[in-house]
Amino acid sequence: MKTINHVSEMIEISKDYGGKSVGFVPTMGALHAGHLSLVKEARKQNDIVVVSVFVNPAQFGPREDFSAYPRMIDKDQKLLEGENVDYMFSPETSEMYPKDFSTSIHVGNLTDYLCGYYRPGHFDGVVLVVNKLFNIVKPTRAYFGQKDAQQFRVLKSMVCDLNMNVEMIEMPIVREADGLALSSRNMYLSPEERKEAPILHLAIKYAVDQIKLGRKDAYKIKREAMNKLGIYPDIKIQYFEIVDEKTLVPVSKITSKVIVAAAIFLGKTRLIDNEIVNV
Amino acid sequence: MKTINHVSEMIEISKDYGGKSVGFVPTMGALHAGHLSLVKEARKQNDIVVVSVFVNPAQFGPREDFSAYPRMIDKDQKLLEGENVDYMFSPETSEMYPKDFSTSIHVGNLTDYLCGYYRPGHFDGVVLVVNKLFNIVKPTRAYFGQKDAQQFRVLKSMVCDLNMNVEMIEMPIVREADGLALSSRNMYLSPEERKEAPILHLAIKYAVDQIKLGRKDAYKIKREAMNKLGIYPDIKIQYFEIVDEKTLVPVSKITSKVIVAAAIFLGKTRLIDNEIVNV
Repeated sequence: MKTINHVSEMIEISKDYGGKSVGFVPTMGALHAGHLSLVKEARKQNDIVVVSVFVNPAQFGPREDFSAYPRMIDKDQKLLEGENVDYMFSPETSEMYPKDFSTSIHVGNLTDYLCGYYRPGHFDGVVLVVNKLFNIVKPTRAYFGQKDAQQFRVLKSMVCDLNMNVEMIEMPIVREADGLALSSRNMYLSPEERKEAPILHLAIKYAVDQIKLGRKDAYKIKREAMNKLGIYPDIKIQYFEIVDEKTLVPVSKITSKVIVAAAIFLGKTRLIDNEIVNV
Repeated sequence: MKTINHVSEMIEISKDYGGKSVGFVPTMGALHAGHLSLVKEARKQNDIVVVSVFVNPAQFGPREDFSAYPRMIDKDQKLLEGENVDYMFSPETSEMYPKDFSTSIHVGNLTDYLCGYYRPGHFDGVVLVVNKLFNIVKPTRAYFGQKDAQQFRVLKSMVCDLNMNVEMIEMPIVREADGLALSSRNMYLSPEERKEAPILHLAIKYAVDQIKLGRKDAYKIKREAMNKLGIYPDIKIQYFEIVDEKTLVPVSKITSKVIVAAAIFLGKTRLIDNEIVNV
């Protein structure tokens, strides 16, 4: 595996992949088995695999955890070597966002609800960095985890609108044995919080089961699921929604494919999770 | 020359140019000798030449001349054939902006003054369509006229910020014998207005000559130049500015490379012009 620290170097490489297919996994590092499932799939489907490790300041709000976000590049590097990755691309912030940087990208509609509502500007930062990374890496396919289901749909919309020629692939959520979705932020949890954390997935699963049983009233299902989260006083629900899988607009009556999606604060740590349900 | 009317068809072509260089000239059609100077340069410097003809609704304000903008695709086609162009790309609006389109791009700073101030949203529309066209056509080099000096600098900033791998080339303004800068909008002018129109360039040239004489006081030079435009009562000055060539910020003291840029209304027709002066 070759480690690339400069944008210009990566551009030089991507200029000519000699007709080979390139699978790309953009990450913020602190890699876990969720990331590695993307890398493994990229490895399976492509001749060349590029993984970026870049903690993107543009997608953090002013009061969010940018500086605290876990950075462990040496460990990440070893993990990616173990997956037989060809290039780890880990640029400097000052190269990605030079002083006179002044371009922004916004995707509307899909960003109105869920995390988009509660993290203003977050998805602008995500689409900006992925747009740049796609131009720098020029992948054939790019891999994202379903844990960030809204992120995937927003990015897909950007790729489609801007005619970027990248195949977008969404991979299933990887979970701990007790159901907690893997996330780099799980390491913020105290042992006590870690014990409580699986309730998030249990509440989502409760809603999914109710939908599968044929119930249609989103409001009642949401209330019942949120009551389950209520058993731990240190959990604050940011949102618990049942939204249309395509538009991400909350539904009142469940008549087509939906996403049950939730965000909670467990102490100071924000956790998200979701499941997609075919009706 | 092949005429391409579908985005998917152009994407198919741009997937593999066989290692050949591609010169691209994005236009809104109604081609004149200004456009053709770009096409000729593209022809000289590249193996393949692509010219797009697309009147981009996204760059017109609600009260601007989108529907009135001249369309003469058959004449354009013949002119481009005469220049030995390889592909004329002329997509439908509904393909460029499908119903659920929701992405926008904004370049800050450079759009604060000049046309950017007076045409809010205009440059958002320009960078959006050029971003899409670059992704669709995948050119090696792209050619723009200096008449739209602000547009060129805004686009260059977008290309740099988003790591788009396109060489941006600015070509000199082509003028009528009496100095009027060529523009598709000149055909809106009545015979009377056409006679008055060269005063725009004369006023700019007056300012340029004063700067070349070593005068530094931008305010006084601007006032004197604007007085020259005052001799025709049906001319309304939108702006007459002397701005830094890089930042496009108006200068009070002329100490480095500047652009003398102006926009006027002559009757209902908006005309722009500029000159770049090395100090």
